[in-house]
Amino acid sequence: MQADAPTVQGELERALATICGETIRIVLAGRTDAGVHATGQVISFRSGTQLDPATIRRGVDALLPADIAIRDVEEAGEDFHARYSATGRAYEYRIRCGAQREPLERHREHWVSQALDVGAMERATGTLVGRHDFAAFATGSPTERSRTEREVRRAAWERDGALLRLEIEADGFLRGMVRAIVGTLLWVGRGHVPAERVAAILASRDRSQAGPNAPPAGLCLVEVRYDGRASTTSDEDDE
Amino acid sequence: MQADAPTVQGELERALATICGETIRIVLAGRTDAGVHATGQVISFRSGTQLDPATIRRGVDALLPADIAIRDVEEAGEDFHARYSATGRAYEYRIRCGAQREPLERHREHWVSQALDVGAMERATGTLVGRHDFAAFATGSPTERSRTEREVRRAAWERDGALLRLEIEADGFLRGMVRAIVGTLLWVGRGHVPAERVAAILASRDRSQAGPNAPPAGLCLVEVRYDGRASTTSDEDDE
Repeated sequence: MQADAPTVQGELERALATICGETIRIVLAGRTDAGVHATGQVISFRSGTQLDPATIRRGVDALLPADIAIRDVEEAGEDFHARYSATGRAYEYRIRCGAQREPLERHREHWVSQALDVGAMERATGTLVGRHDFAAFATGSPTERSRTEREVRRAAWERDGALLRLEIEADGFLRGMVRAIVGTLLWVGRGHVPAERVAAILASRDRSQAGPNAPPAGLCLVEVRYDGRASTTSDEDDE
Repeated sequence: MQADAPTVQGELERALATICGETIRIVLAGRTDAGVHATGQVISFRSGTQLDPATIRRGVDALLPADIAIRDVEEAGEDFHARYSATGRAYEYRIRCGAQREPLERHREHWVSQALDVGAMERATGTLVGRHDFAAFATGSPTERSRTEREVRRAAWERDGALLRLEIEADGFLRGMVRAIVGTLLWVGRGHVPAERVAAILASRDRSQAGPNAPPAGLCLVEVRYDGRASTTSDEDDE
């Protein structure tokens, strides 16, 4: 919520209030900074409305601006919380490589004109998988160690022509974590630092050792997972 | 060229003038109205520059705004003219069907929430293929018959999940022709007019008989063809 700019949260709460006839506060499963996209965002809210989920979906969707849509609405248990109940998140980061820009995709991709050493980026990416303290890749001041541990369950680059796509899944992400990881991997891809250095950057817990945040346009929250057990680590600020 | 709005033509001419060091006027193969996209636009221009095509490409591309890119530059014969030498154009029109909007594609697709009778749309589309007078689907006042004849070589709908895509190729297109055709086919898809009526609308040569122009966002110029023979019909205003 920002006082003078429309936000996804603000727009959703306004539309829900109109349809449900009461003040609604929503919880988002994952933060998305300005310019970051989400195709798999999940929100939760409580309401005393008698309207069924399908009616709420249609009504709210009709009131939302063109850049926000509701895919589905369903009733959840009393204890469901979009953020604290989440057991995993998946993000995608899109990089377009090569001399040719793709103007129609400019809001969804980060364009890199230089050739990248994708093999080196893949080796470096492998060192991030597992449970680690990711303080080196977190926006904001460092906190006690246990609060910056996350388990990266999968991180892999997919190549589709000029498009290079990082798929990364974890129990949760620190704020700015994916963008800092991508910025660091771009250092590796451009040959600024060797792939082997990324393990040392991770171990340093020092944000100043890692690369700059990659631009927001390439980032998208693609999935939030719930598997019945409470998340123990998702109470931090997310990406 | 509009006096107070940036246009693709204006931006290209400005960037070319800077790189070539002289005033440049360009010719575009196909018009694209505001909101219409082009991934296959071709332009031609004359210049006395000594720079090679690859250098022009890099230099101009670097000066262009983020929503315009140059894919390739090559030297052409003295008599090449992007518009008059073209022997064919292909457009694509994207319709997203169903209850779910797709906000990240909103600038590239036309969203239709109602169910469409795609079979009826396909039958109607078939009646448009061939050499016909397309005055009923042309923006602007009617002219003599010979000037509104075009040969539609191919027109087919492709379905990919919720995305419905018209691929249409012709020797040339009248201004607004694809959007008027799609607007009329949407009438058919929604059951407002039977598929069989489209042949009569075509024969009427009367723009008021056809449907409204479909929105520009769904339309994209995807290819311009040159096969060595001069086009005899592309001297009209194009889509």
